Amino acid sequence: MKKVDLVIKNARIVTSRDICTGGIAVNDGKIVAICKDPLLPSADSIIDAGGRAVLPGAIDAHVHVYIPGQLSETFETGTKAAAVGGVTTIIEMPSLDELLTTTVKNFEKKKAIGEKEACVDFALHAGEIQEEKDFLEIEDLVRTGAVGFKITMGGGSSAVKNDGIMFESFKRISEAKSVAIVHAENHQLYEFLKNKAVQKGENDPIAYSFSRPNIVEAEAISRAILFAKFAGNKLHVAHMTTKEGVELVRNAKDNWQPVTAEVTPQALLLNKKNYEKCKHYLIMNPPVREKEDNLALWKALNDGTVDCIVTDHCAYSKEEKNVGLKNIWDTPPGIPGLETIMGLLISEGVNKNRIELKRLVQLCCENPARIFGLYPRKGVIQVGSDADFMIIDLKKEEVIQSDKFQCIGECTPFEGWRIKGKPILTVVRGQIVADNGNIIGKPGYGKFIPSPKVISEE
Amino acid sequence: MKKVDLVIKNARIVTSRDICTGGIAVNDGKIVAICKDPLLPSADSIIDAGGRAVLPGAIDAHVHVYIPGQLSETFETGTKAAAVGGVTTIIEMPSLDELLTTTVKNFEKKKAIGEKEACVDFALHAGEIQEEKDFLEIEDLVRTGAVGFKITMGGGSSAVKNDGIMFESFKRISEAKSVAIVHAENHQLYEFLKNKAVQKGENDPIAYSFSRPNIVEAEAISRAILFAKFAGNKLHVAHMTTKEGVELVRNAKDNWQPVTAEVTPQALLLNKKNYEKCKHYLIMNPPVREKEDNLALWKALNDGTVDCIVTDHCAYSKEEKNVGLKNIWDTPPGIPGLETIMGLLISEGVNKNRIELKRLVQLCCENPARIFGLYPRKGVIQVGSDADFMIIDLKKEEVIQSDKFQCIGECTPFEGWRIKGKPILTVVRGQIVADNGNIIGKPGYGKFIPSPKVISEE
Amino acid sequence: MKKVDLVIKNARIVTSRDICTGGIAVNDGKIVAICKDPLLPSADSIIDAGGRAVLPGAIDAHVHVYIPGQLSETFETGTKAAAVGGVTTIIEMPSLDELLTTTVKNFEKKKAIGEKEACVDFALHAGEIQEEKDFLEIEDLVRTGAVGFKITMGGGSSAVKNDGIMFESFKRISEAKSVAIVHAENHQLYEFLKNKAVQKGENDPIAYSFSRPNIVEAEAISRAILFAKFAGNKLHVAHMTTKEGVELVRNAKDNWQPVTAEVTPQALLLNKKNYEKCKHYLIMNPPVREKEDNLALWKALNDGTVDCIVTDHCAYSKEEKNVGLKNIWDTPPGIPGLETIMGLLISEGVNKNRIELKRLVQLCCENPARIFGLYPRKGVIQVGSDADFMIIDLKKEEVIQSDKFQCIGECTPFEGWRIKGKPILTVVRGQIVADNGNIIGKPGYGKFIPSPKVISEE
Amino acid sequence: MKKVDLVIKNARIVTSRDICTGGIAVNDGKIVAICKDPLLPSADSIIDAGGRAVLPGAIDAHVHVYIPGQLSETFETGTKAAAVGGVTTIIEMPSLDELLTTTVKNFEKKKAIGEKEACVDFALHAGEIQEEKDFLEIEDLVRTGAVGFKITMGGGSSAVKNDGIMFESFKRISEAKSVAIVHAENHQLYEFLKNKAVQKGENDPIAYSFSRPNIVEAEAISRAILFAKFAGNKLHVAHMTTKEGVELVRNAKDNWQPVTAEVTPQALLLNKKNYEKCKHYLIMNPPVREKEDNLALWKALNDGTVDCIVTDHCAYSKEEKNVGLKNIWDTPPGIPGLETIMGLLISEGVNKNRIELKRLVQLCCENPARIFGLYPRKGVIQVGSDADFMIIDLKKEEVIQSDKFQCIGECTPFEGWRIKGKPILTVVRGQIVADNGNIIGKPGYGKFIPSPKVISEE
Repeated sequence: MKKVDLVIKNARIVTSRDICTGGIAVNDGKIVAICKDPLLPSADSIIDAGGRAVLPGAIDAHVHVYIPGQLSETFETGTKAAAVGGVTTIIEMPSLDELLTTTVKNFEKKKAIGEKEACVDFALHAGEIQEEKDFLEIEDLVRTGAVGFKITMGGGSSAVKNDGIMFESFKRISEAKSVAIVHAENHQLYEFLKNKAVQKGENDPIAYSFSRPNIVEAEAISRAILFAKFAGNKLHVAHMTTKEGVELVRNAKDNWQPVTAEVTPQALLLNKKNYEKCKHYLIMNPPVREKEDNLALWKALNDGTVDCIVTDHCAYSKEEKNVGLKNIWDTPPGIPGLETIMGLLISEGVNKNRIELKRLVQLCCENPARIFGLYPRKGVIQVGSDADFMIIDLKKEEVIQSDKFQCIGECTPFEGWRIKGKPILTVVRGQIVADNGNIIGKPGYGKFIPSPKVISEE
Repeated sequence: MKKVDLVIKNARIVTSRDICTGGIAVNDGKIVAICKDPLLPSADSIIDAGGRAVLPGAIDAHVHVYIPGQLSETFETGTKAAAVGGVTTIIEMPSLDELLTTTVKNFEKKKAIGEKEACVDFALHAGEIQEEKDFLEIEDLVRTGAVGFKITMGGGSSAVKNDGIMFESFKRISEAKSVAIVHAENHQLYEFLKNKAVQKGENDPIAYSFSRPNIVEAEAISRAILFAKFAGNKLHVAHMTTKEGVELVRNAKDNWQPVTAEVTPQALLLNKKNYEKCKHYLIMNPPVREKEDNLALWKALNDGTVDCIVTDHCAYSKEEKNVGLKNIWDTPPGIPGLETIMGLLISEGVNKNRIELKRLVQLCCENPARIFGLYPRKGVIQVGSDADFMIIDLKKEEVIQSDKFQCIGECTPFEGWRIKGKPILTVVRGQIVADNGNIIGKPGYGKFIPSPKVISEE
Repeated sequence: MKKVDLVIKNARIVTSRDICTGGIAVNDGKIVAICKDPLLPSADSIIDAGGRAVLPGAIDAHVHVYIPGQLSETFETGTKAAAVGGVTTIIEMPSLDELLTTTVKNFEKKKAIGEKEACVDFALHAGEIQEEKDFLEIEDLVRTGAVGFKITMGGGSSAVKNDGIMFESFKRISEAKSVAIVHAENHQLYEFLKNKAVQKGENDPIAYSFSRPNIVEAEAISRAILFAKFAGNKLHVAHMTTKEGVELVRNAKDNWQPVTAEVTPQALLLNKKNYEKCKHYLIMNPPVREKEDNLALWKALNDGTVDCIVTDHCAYSKEEKNVGLKNIWDTPPGIPGLETIMGLLISEGVNKNRIELKRLVQLCCENPARIFGLYPRKGVIQVGSDADFMIIDLKKEEVIQSDKFQCIGECTPFEGWRIKGKPILTVVRGQIVADNGNIIGKPGYGKFIPSPKVISEE
Repeated sequence: MKKVDLVIKNARIVTSRDICTGGIAVNDGKIVAICKDPLLPSADSIIDAGGRAVLPGAIDAHVHVYIPGQLSETFETGTKAAAVGGVTTIIEMPSLDELLTTTVKNFEKKKAIGEKEACVDFALHAGEIQEEKDFLEIEDLVRTGAVGFKITMGGGSSAVKNDGIMFESFKRISEAKSVAIVHAENHQLYEFLKNKAVQKGENDPIAYSFSRPNIVEAEAISRAILFAKFAGNKLHVAHMTTKEGVELVRNAKDNWQPVTAEVTPQALLLNKKNYEKCKHYLIMNPPVREKEDNLALWKALNDGTVDCIVTDHCAYSKEEKNVGLKNIWDTPPGIPGLETIMGLLISEGVNKNRIELKRLVQLCCENPARIFGLYPRKGVIQVGSDADFMIIDLKKEEVIQSDKFQCIGECTPFEGWRIKGKPILTVVRGQIVADNGNIIGKPGYGKFIPSPKVISEE
């Protein structure tokens, strides 16, 4: 029997259904064996998991690490944060920027930049679709490897121009057998409420959140589900935050409509009370809600209404974020999340018995891979799949400190949180990319992972 | 026993629950007795119903008879048509016009015009609400007698400016304990599809209807229901046409939400096949649908999902309507209906066993009165109520001919239909206003019927 | 104009939909006019209602006043109690007795006894169906005037022999277009639990109620609904007591199945806490439940899940009831209710804002008449209907005292309750039968009211 | 690296979620490695799967191979049939017999007999619970290894005595954290209908099926679900056959109640039309239904309403079955199924695109193991699990012939069916037990697989 590149021994291998003990052999970046330790082949490298949990590497399906002209973050800084955080594949979510990936040309450019800089693997959503010209290349973009199409229904400058564009896009996404991803906020209602607040001279986080009450999200989710029903496309609801949204998605699923939904750790763990301490650092869209929304989301995670957990990572320096000190409405929205997602979920979820480790593998690994066509190459520990892992130490304690982040984010609402349990080693295609918070992966190692359409055409 | 003004004897008195035989005595415009014929008091006038059905006069809650600057129809011509058709109270529905009734001042003006011209009684909806300035006087308008507030979500020039205005209006209507009435079409989607069609040079009724597919109505109904749920107001869905709309309203009712809905005879009886013969004369908003939508509406009439039947009467001369010959998109939308509503419902509904006469009394008399606060003054044959009646001859045959209409409408999609059963005598507050198609009522006889708010304040 | 037998003037006439002021004229036992007081004809008798509420006489669809061999109560004593209580028609519910009305012969015998003794009108349910021989004459019994068929699923000696008999009966009742009325308790489960309790030597009211937990009723209702769905018959659930039963009936109605349900004042107003004071006097089947069941029933009364309120009147002397002092399991089950039903509902329902007076007319008058085919002869104040009324004094206060009862019942769980509001005058077909608690009606005045089948055959 | 006992190479490994290519290594009866072929360790035995599908061995959770006094079948003949059919674990379902396994004593006896005779592994359900004495040892039986408790609600001599026994058993099964398995037929209704048919002299399969119409099953399922809801136990519905049953189970699952259900190939593939050819050979309980029931079951298999597929194997000789020629009511009910289950499902299911191979692994392997506590020891191909496999040749054609059966069954309704696709090799704990229809396993090789309760107590 030939020697392999790497073995991980002495592991508790956690899949989406089970936990078994043994080891994993890796060659040429792929898993080639799962076996009892004594049967492991000899290898160039050996990792002793020390009886710890070995999970598939996390797939973060909603990450902003490249918004040219607006963000200092790059594929390099962002994917270093990913590596440290246990995330082995990011799916970059476009925003309205100079390099709008609604054309194959721009998509290829962005892909090339990613290939040069990324330390972990990456896939790309296309978008944002705003105008007629933006839906013309949908089918070509799928063929080029786009795994989903982003449409911001409202709440910012990148909102789709009108429902006609959205509905037509849904129909074309349906024909291309891809997925529409909606940032679900009712644009007109938000604008109306924001203008009211601005007129009244309101200028604080609470006012900000009142300009985007639950109905702003609920209405948009409701409309997107109805449009998708008529257009026939798969729909993915991004960063859902409200109990009403949960109810709408649950209802669609009960009626067998192909709708999926994601939540963020911040939507699970934070609410309006956190404004007191976090102030403008906590500004993001959609905003934090109430305690009862947190609880509804945790329930939805467990009962199958919510399909995956993502970061919606969007990092800023303190200086950038401090714009909000003067004018809350101009605060750049978003928080960093790649370094903290798995630690928070292990600490606040698994170790507090809110969720099982196996369900976490579904939510953070298998489901995002399935929804966006990366499965079974990604998201599973199985012979033939990519050798992407995170080793979890369920007992390791740590304090979250943004000054140790790899990403450019200098402030997090979780600053100072003491967590118990986190990823301590991250492996991408058989190579260690992060070890105990130290980055080992090199820019350019990360590969572009296309949608399966490309492959199946060959 | 004193002598009364009028008795109707030898009647089959049809109420929303029962049918009984006897007579009705009227004094000072009110019903003062319902009794067996021998007990009827002596009277100045006697009507012998000849064993025919006597129903409460119909209340048409959605009528356009006054759009200054756009419509030749007047309160006079319109209410003459009403009288002939068995309609004893119209509720005028404002359109975007020179006299926008979103202020008390304009509302009073319109009321004065009605009081001068109307041959039957009338109430007034206020609206249409389009901008911020339009929702400022909601509470005052209710106090002045407005029975509901019209908001056109889309599909024409009068669409509400944005969802913010609509949601805020809903909240204020809720506070005023009134009803929001929505013309439910998604404006952006309609505009998008219409522009596509125009760009392609399409110019026929079918193209027109394709620019407003079922999703255009369904989405708007869905959104209005969700907004009303959050705003807490009563919602009335105007002229519903789609099977999807029926499903949405049924669902809201199952969840105890205070939502009501109306349909028109044209939505029940006509569909796209009728374009062949009716062509541009059939242009109206929302457009006709498919056979299966007709059937869903009939079912909804009977199972309680739909609450009332209205005409959405909006009459044009042939010349006005013929604009559509050149450009279908410029056709003034709408058809006349006041003369034909009851005849069509008796003929195609009652006499074809699609609906019971008692249910028709609920749909055309009692329910509109209840929804818009006119009950029990209107909509019921009961001691103390206004003496408004229509006597129905269930066997009388007639051919519908628009050249005999009282209203200014010169074309109807029902032209030439042979009907069996129709109102032959109409009484408003004890006075005969129409007898066998001949108009007897005089302009100025019709009274303004205010919302109950006005009264209860005294 | 001719003189009539009776007029009631100065009344607030309460129907199931409205309240109007005026008077009622009666001739030959029928309502011949409803009118403003000045229009009332001259009359032999005049009742001045003094501005009080005049309702249709109550119809109590579940009354035991004749169980030969077991009950001292007779049609005479029972209908005197009815008259005093505002009940103008009782529907006698058969129990297992010497005169089992599952044959036309016995039915005619019972009818004759009723005609001789009753002071108010009466209809008869047939039954109880226990064995094959009991369902053979179903169609003939309907033709003879039976308005429903009683089947005791369990909980006593009269239980139907098996599900086969019940299902076959349902099918035959369906063919006869009649109604199956079920006493819904799971016989086997009750027997099992009771035997356990008896074996353990338990001998108190709480043990009694534990032998019939909610599941005993819920399962039987569930089974009856399912059988009725397959058999196609109308089903009426007698004396429902549990929140689970409410849910099952609501669900059946949501699925358009023709199921109706009744509750008693005792199920609305009493629960296990009342055993403390009432002890074995409160023994009845089904037993009292918990506070949350009371609340679920009140809600169901208002939302349309429950259709009517009945007494399940079944009166015993103290001596008879005191058998339970020695052995709780031998206590004859049942309580008197005819004197107290309307007073309790006015006092605890209307005057405590738990229910509207109009809804009470539906529940106590119109709905029982409709369900069992007596409408519109009974249950409504309308020209042509029987002149059955109760005049209610909403402010009259009184203490419930069983020693003043007309029925043979010497103990009531409501003993000593101070009520506010009660019927003060009862009229059956134009004759006063009770005036302020004094009985005026004579035995033999009450008429047998057959199901409409008899009439329509002529 | 040490040598192992067995490797299977060149396999398409099919799990409940995926298909991957490679090999499996087995040592000491357990799976010790899953890997790419070149990494397979050396082994004493090598099986070349030839690129064919390798599935976990099937688990048949409802098998009758031992009814002393009634059945000639034995653990030996039955498990030989299992081996040939790809079934590596049977769960023996008790019937009313001389060795009623409602006591630990009898359970141990039966277990010992199984251990002596079985060629494949086996687990044991306890039961049948009929009387009070039968539920006394429930907790002890779970500790002894029983994986479920059988209750026949009706339809034969073994029916539970009454609902009290059933409900009390459910409560005790709940406390013991085990599963109640119900043969769901309403006993009284069936008896009633059967007696009618017998009285009329009916004596053919159609009459037999009419004595057990859909309501007989539907009512029993409905009652069992309601009882389980109140008792709090897990419920498993055995051999469901009706579309109404599907609806009831789906509804319970929608309400999060822990209810599971199984179907048989005969319920999926046969209906009343098959009586024509199969006659009394097709007599079984519940009987075959209509085409629309077949379709409802296939749909339920795919949408998750049905959890597993079982045989309900119960084999008779022609002589035994031919009793039905004389009197259909005395026909011993049941058909053999172990040899044919997987072939029929591959041929009629997978190869006709009614079901995916992965879903079949869930239905035939993983789910029965999970429901009855055998997972992950059984039902999955995973390192650490028992090395139970069936190799499937998807293209192999064969004609079903009962004269080649290993079991004692001499007649099958599938006689003469030409199938395409079937298991060709069966491995239990690393040992080949059947090869291409030839039995290789030896009686006594099969192990008793206890419920996990036993293990977790250590």
